[in-house]
Amino acid sequence: MSSAIQRLRSLFSPAYAHELLGLLSETLSEHFGEVLSGQGPVQRWELPPQKIARAGQRLDESLLSTAHSPLPESIARVRDLMREALAAGQNLHHPHYIGHQVPGPLPLAGVFDAIATITNQVMAVYEMGPWATAVERALIERMGAVLGLPQGQFAGLITSGGSIANLTALLTARNVVHGETWKSGVAALATPPVILVQQDAHYCIARAVGILGLGTNQLVRIGLDAQRRMDPDQLEESLRQHRQRGIPVTAVVACACATPIGAFDPLEPIAEICQRYGVWLHVDAAHGAAAAFSPKYRHLVAGLGRADSSICDAHKMMHVPALCAFVFYRDKAHRFSAFQQDAPYLFDPSALGMAEYDCGLMTMECTKRAAAYGLWGTWATLGPQVFADLIDVTFDLAASAWEFLQNQPDFQAPYRPQCNIVVFRHTPAGVPAANWNELNREVRRQLIESGEFYVSQTTIDGVAYLRMTVINPLTEMAMIEQLMARIRDLAKSEMK
Amino acid sequence: MSSAIQRLRSLFSPAYAHELLGLLSETLSEHFGEVLSGQGPVQRWELPPQKIARAGQRLDESLLSTAHSPLPESIARVRDLMREALAAGQNLHHPHYIGHQVPGPLPLAGVFDAIATITNQVMAVYEMGPWATAVERALIERMGAVLGLPQGQFAGLITSGGSIANLTALLTARNVVHGETWKSGVAALATPPVILVQQDAHYCIARAVGILGLGTNQLVRIGLDAQRRMDPDQLEESLRQHRQRGIPVTAVVACACATPIGAFDPLEPIAEICQRYGVWLHVDAAHGAAAAFSPKYRHLVAGLGRADSSICDAHKMMHVPALCAFVFYRDKAHRFSAFQQDAPYLFDPSALGMAEYDCGLMTMECTKRAAAYGLWGTWATLGPQVFADLIDVTFDLAASAWEFLQNQPDFQAPYRPQCNIVVFRHTPAGVPAANWNELNREVRRQLIESGEFYVSQTTIDGVAYLRMTVINPLTEMAMIEQLMARIRDLAKSEMK
Repeated sequence: MSSAIQRLRSLFSPAYAHELLGLLSETLSEHFGEVLSGQGPVQRWELPPQKIARAGQRLDESLLSTAHSPLPESIARVRDLMREALAAGQNLHHPHYIGHQVPGPLPLAGVFDAIATITNQVMAVYEMGPWATAVERALIERMGAVLGLPQGQFAGLITSGGSIANLTALLTARNVVHGETWKSGVAALATPPVILVQQDAHYCIARAVGILGLGTNQLVRIGLDAQRRMDPDQLEESLRQHRQRGIPVTAVVACACATPIGAFDPLEPIAEICQRYGVWLHVDAAHGAAAAFSPKYRHLVAGLGRADSSICDAHKMMHVPALCAFVFYRDKAHRFSAFQQDAPYLFDPSALGMAEYDCGLMTMECTKRAAAYGLWGTWATLGPQVFADLIDVTFDLAASAWEFLQNQPDFQAPYRPQCNIVVFRHTPAGVPAANWNELNREVRRQLIESGEFYVSQTTIDGVAYLRMTVINPLTEMAMIEQLMARIRDLAKSEMK
Repeated sequence: MSSAIQRLRSLFSPAYAHELLGLLSETLSEHFGEVLSGQGPVQRWELPPQKIARAGQRLDESLLSTAHSPLPESIARVRDLMREALAAGQNLHHPHYIGHQVPGPLPLAGVFDAIATITNQVMAVYEMGPWATAVERALIERMGAVLGLPQGQFAGLITSGGSIANLTALLTARNVVHGETWKSGVAALATPPVILVQQDAHYCIARAVGILGLGTNQLVRIGLDAQRRMDPDQLEESLRQHRQRGIPVTAVVACACATPIGAFDPLEPIAEICQRYGVWLHVDAAHGAAAAFSPKYRHLVAGLGRADSSICDAHKMMHVPALCAFVFYRDKAHRFSAFQQDAPYLFDPSALGMAEYDCGLMTMECTKRAAAYGLWGTWATLGPQVFADLIDVTFDLAASAWEFLQNQPDFQAPYRPQCNIVVFRHTPAGVPAANWNELNREVRRQLIESGEFYVSQTTIDGVAYLRMTVINPLTEMAMIEQLMARIRDLAKSEMK
């Protein structure tokens, strides 16, 4: 037996796997003990070149030579590397992480995801990922029902994140609405079509239009109301004008919610208008779809089930590890419309009925990881109530944070939160208003670099805001008050 | 405190996390103890509707009501669900899995990937995934060097799989070669361009052309030599003709290797020709790029560093969990050419220098999982020798398998393997040649359904082949002999 075979056999031995799994459990338990208790910083800030150099240095310190197998000495090395990775990362589980629309996932979801990862359950074809496929299909059925899609008539898929989910859905819209574009290209269309988009839609929507060859110049932004929701009247007027001028419409894209302030478009009237005009409605509900689990908040997504296509990121408000994004088609006839090809070695000519279960026919990915194990394990253990809890607790806390801000004369928070996103800015009397943008950005950077808190930011009509996504159920109102006090302090030292 | 908050706090408690991590370690150790030893089946076959119904039944058996927190009783439930998922999945780690180009990953890579998953390290911006970014950048530098990219001049990214990697690279090619298409759409081009593609290229290449709005009719397939490698003379002739007719060429797509038989295109002469014609060369080296680690096999990818863009799936021959796909641009000036937008809340106007480290500007994904922890942890523990070992052991065994098949009169294996992919078919004298296609497909299905072996299949010029990807270093020559014996037996009972 060659020495290479001997080395590999030891790396794939049950004994080594057992030791490694023990280390995984040990180092992560240690880590969670600190972070979930709010000990230590949200992150240990370093500039990128320093971190990159350190990550690279580890790569260059090699244990294995062609001469020997380093199994015994590797255990201590693995423990050190795991600890280093954990110490150098971002602690989404820290209660002071109130930042982006990405949560510290439920540890329950995390361990189920790890089952899929470590055993590498993948799909494309059912026979390669039988349980991965089963889990996805079972979840698609139940999620669709929660979102109000028509029972027995819809289809869905899971893909690698919201951007790719939106791209997949808009590709389907393009192919369904302009059938010739797949084979003949977009150049075959007599008149370049337009895409009508919520003004605050995530950048991935404009990107999708660029990717699909439609041209980002063909984006038409539909105006918003005072709460930054798409104005149905303006949508209707735009559709009327385009119809009058003979310009085809590929799709209308609404948001539930849009990212900047978390605005939920009024989906019922929008769906009504799109139906009347015979136009494809796509709803980017990456963040907000999960509100459908909560009796208190599901009104926000009423009408979602009427969209021709929609997406939901389970790795946002359902607190599973990234990436686990659903795409839904209201009419299951569209499930194979994104792609129209064959791969003889993959899709089995001897078992054609199986194609219905070969998800590769529906997804951007060929090999696709089993992204839904975390969601399946969580739901199968606890039932859907946990998703309602996550919505209620985080949305309620955001409302309280906003109420608190209303009573702080040196803070502005102009938009009452519709979900768990709160934008606000510090406006101290001692600083000229012209400097507030810069001040808020500077204070945010210091918050992050100190590791005390993590918040994000946005700019609306040229005004810079700080932005909280209240997404960690361990965050308490007292911490949010503490955050504002800290912002005041940092601003004061800036002013000196 | 509301009961919802109480329930969530217990789910995010260090004690519960500790218990769950213990279960993860326990159930996976148990599982590896069997599967790595070759015990039990490769998979326990069930028809899709049965598996889907069972996965759904688990979802409908809920433990959590609004009234109580089910933590104590959940432990036994989690253990059962983990065991069920493991028992119902595909065992890529089983030595009888000799199927697709997806491995049972190194357990070492698996546990590092799980660190990233369970703590949900994600990117888009450096500040959200500081270590995730560092790890990727350090690996991109070193991988590029191994692949022969020009030191200090290239750039790269990691994305969710080979299909999306190819799409990203071809989008960049489209945007660089036809600059106006991003904003004005493909319709703005005076003459529809063509894409010249290896005849056996993976289906995702044709898909990319369809997605990008170029039209799959614009694909020109370049003919192959007897070993199914792109014929440089035919490529040159095609380029000459298109130039003569004034038809622009978006890109030439070569393979290292193409999927059906694992053919490696002659990259040096192809790069030479593309350079002479000033045409963008993209190489899909999803499977084969890792051959560059092996002194014995790196000749297969000589010239890869000359491609304008190329991809490599670390989740194939580098044995890390899916999905971890690299895209490389020879000229780092192209790194931001796929997408051309801003997202003020994401990409920080107060720290513009940071954009260089915000990978979201380069990737299809916005939120992107830290896909490279597995590769980083493996490399940092063992050094690159392990990747050379994986290539040498699997490629050598495939060569032995092919030699063995040459001596079996009732098997055909017409293509000497160039890597670890072997296509073959059973051709028993007692069965009319016209029935061999059906026989081989039927035998394959029985092999899979019995759980004895997993092999894949392909069809070349109308001929159905069985297809081994020798990708598990635990597979031994004796098992491959046993596979052929089993195929003979199954064929015999078919014939009855």
